[in-house]
Amino acid sequence: MVDGAFAHTPTPPYVAVIFTSVRTPGDNGYAVMASRMDELARIQPGYLGIESAREELGITVSYWADEAAAQAWKHVTEHEIAQQRGRSAWYADYQVRVATVTRSYGPDGPR
Amino acid sequence: MVDGAFAHTPTPPYVAVIFTSVRTPGDNGYAVMASRMDELARIQPGYLGIESAREELGITVSYWADEAAAQAWKHVTEHEIAQQRGRSAWYADYQVRVATVTRSYGPDGPR
Repeated sequence: MVDGAFAHTPTPPYVAVIFTSVRTPGDNGYAVMASRMDELARIQPGYLGIESAREELGITVSYWADEAAAQAWKHVTEHEIAQQRGRSAWYADYQVRVATVTRSYGPDGPR
Repeated sequence: MVDGAFAHTPTPPYVAVIFTSVRTPGDNGYAVMASRMDELARIQPGYLGIESAREELGITVSYWADEAAAQAWKHVTEHEIAQQRGRSAWYADYQVRVATVTRSYGPDGPR
């Protein structure tokens, strides 16, 4: 098992927030804020993990114990400010999908 | 709206299959098979779209009309052969999470 990149989530059910985005050109303060949001997310109640990759499209999946925990993170003040800056400066477009994970498995079976 | 990279999914509910992976070194026939699987997925019943990005971690989210459609795709013979090759050659590790999307929104509200 390769560690570090994967989120270590518990047995389902839990919530996945799938955030897909296309960036605008330039940094415009994005890297610093992204790193701060990552740090801040990790200390929220119900936080389970985060997975992220970016090519043409960026995909970040954050995992939460339940819908209430995912919603609470959306409304953390510092995160709301980041979301507003995301809409006005960092993202040409984005989509958020909130989903309930029902099954999970790896190469050796359920995980 | 930036087009091309985003999946154009309908109003929820629908199913998201979140596939996260870490590759082994080298191509080993991966690129050709990945492109073929992409092509094959698109013609399956209940296929809604696919989104993909890879850095240290690869994340591919495929969207399906329902659980039955996602399951059927998992069991398409050519895809089963690819999955076996994935386990033996292409992926150092991977995780699949099957989830039901319940809400979806973009910068301008529900989408």
